[in-house]
Amino acid sequence: MNEVVIRRPTTSVRVRALDDGQVIERPDRLVTEEPMEIRVHGPGQQPVPLAVTMRTPGADFELAVGFCVTEGIVASPTEVASVAYCVEGGEQRYNVVTVRLREPVSLDGRERNFVANSSCGLCGKAALDQIEVQCRPLADGPRIAGSTVLRLPDRLRNAQQVFEVTGGLHAAALFEPAGELVALREDVGRHNALDKIVGHAALERRLPLAQNVLLVSGRVSFEIVQKAAVAGVPIVCAVSAPSSLAVQAATRLGQTVLGFVRPGRFNVYSHPERVDVTG
Amino acid sequence: MNEVVIRRPTTSVRVRALDDGQVIERPDRLVTEEPMEIRVHGPGQQPVPLAVTMRTPGADFELAVGFCVTEGIVASPTEVASVAYCVEGGEQRYNVVTVRLREPVSLDGRERNFVANSSCGLCGKAALDQIEVQCRPLADGPRIAGSTVLRLPDRLRNAQQVFEVTGGLHAAALFEPAGELVALREDVGRHNALDKIVGHAALERRLPLAQNVLLVSGRVSFEIVQKAAVAGVPIVCAVSAPSSLAVQAATRLGQTVLGFVRPGRFNVYSHPERVDVTG
Repeated sequence: MNEVVIRRPTTSVRVRALDDGQVIERPDRLVTEEPMEIRVHGPGQQPVPLAVTMRTPGADFELAVGFCVTEGIVASPTEVASVAYCVEGGEQRYNVVTVRLREPVSLDGRERNFVANSSCGLCGKAALDQIEVQCRPLADGPRIAGSTVLRLPDRLRNAQQVFEVTGGLHAAALFEPAGELVALREDVGRHNALDKIVGHAALERRLPLAQNVLLVSGRVSFEIVQKAAVAGVPIVCAVSAPSSLAVQAATRLGQTVLGFVRPGRFNVYSHPERVDVTG
Repeated sequence: MNEVVIRRPTTSVRVRALDDGQVIERPDRLVTEEPMEIRVHGPGQQPVPLAVTMRTPGADFELAVGFCVTEGIVASPTEVASVAYCVEGGEQRYNVVTVRLREPVSLDGRERNFVANSSCGLCGKAALDQIEVQCRPLADGPRIAGSTVLRLPDRLRNAQQVFEVTGGLHAAALFEPAGELVALREDVGRHNALDKIVGHAALERRLPLAQNVLLVSGRVSFEIVQKAAVAGVPIVCAVSAPSSLAVQAATRLGQTVLGFVRPGRFNVYSHPERVDVTG
């Protein structure tokens, strides 16, 4: 039982480095990637393995709850009774998290289909017609000023702690429309970073995130759009490019997607009515 | 039936862009992300859905075969009898690929566990003790000179065609130890790009890739190390950082991992005996 080691977001290694003609042996820090199994159960039910996700330790309970929300296992955070590390043989296992629900859960065989990984949100969909998770229509508001959008990446980067050390992390950050940072989470997988944000909001009873703006550090895939939409996020910003399916889904779901948010520039790909470009 | 549209690696959209204070509406190109279902069957068996992967169209058959190899569905490419798009109601479906094997296939329930996405290699593992795919020990050779390593990223970038347009693609490239490019594949998902490389090699009967060097455009996760090891790749280079689990797995599997391969520098994280750093 060694919580400290298991939950550290970075891992120390020694590397042989070539740098500008010099060969040196030196210590280095890597982002920690470890599997985490998510189990769910209701009253009187045995916990059922739902997913294994490759994640960076930290905010594990948020990740488990966020995953349950964005993958449609629970419709509301109020359905979650408790979250805990699994105890087996008297020892806590920090790579197995059990989510206990207030009502019995029927997975309809989904526990067999659910697989996650460090960057996987397409979980539990073993056929093409299963890849969409139901979500409610997004709210109209808020609007965001272009000048505010341009400030978001710096605010995310300033708040990131692990990235600067390892160079290997994705980040997701939640902002108020005026630009104040609400929450930031990092993970080796971009979907995990978003699930941690959603789980954080769920545990604080802040869902749906109808008045917030999401910024992700990388690209925007279909799954990012879908997970954000399930959490009610109306505006998704990204430092890099969205995919075709991300833009198609956002257009259909009523979500505003901005990409290539970089110094002095950004692109709006869907529902530009929420962006005051010149504001 | 519209093969051209479905298989295009980029998709045209119009965006509202803010650029240095100017607001313009202009056309843009996005990397195409589309789901593709992989089905497998043997003689006399009905095709069974194995996985849905979010991929960039192109090299679909390579992707399907590569996935079957790196996920341990087939031990040798010679087990593959044919690969084809599914035909339903007289129409080809370009998002469903069926792999026919020479022998009946027993999935042992794996078809229920298998899910892939644009960046997911952790497929079919519904519990922690299932996340490793069996692979044979890696061969000793080859060795690569540090000066050759430093030239690989430029060669990959020069050969990339779609990235320059969309800014949203991962790439995987296979090289000879002396630095000659063997094959390059791009995809919205890094695992898919690698599966396409492995599928290409499988269809050309070039597995195992015991004398080759792999370069990936992004980071190195556990799954990249594992998929490359299953294909027999002894040296994996990356432009960005490896994760902790990637380095642990590579160390155990006998694979050399290099990260942060950038102008004038790189780090060797495991099995440095295959790298002549000063060569």
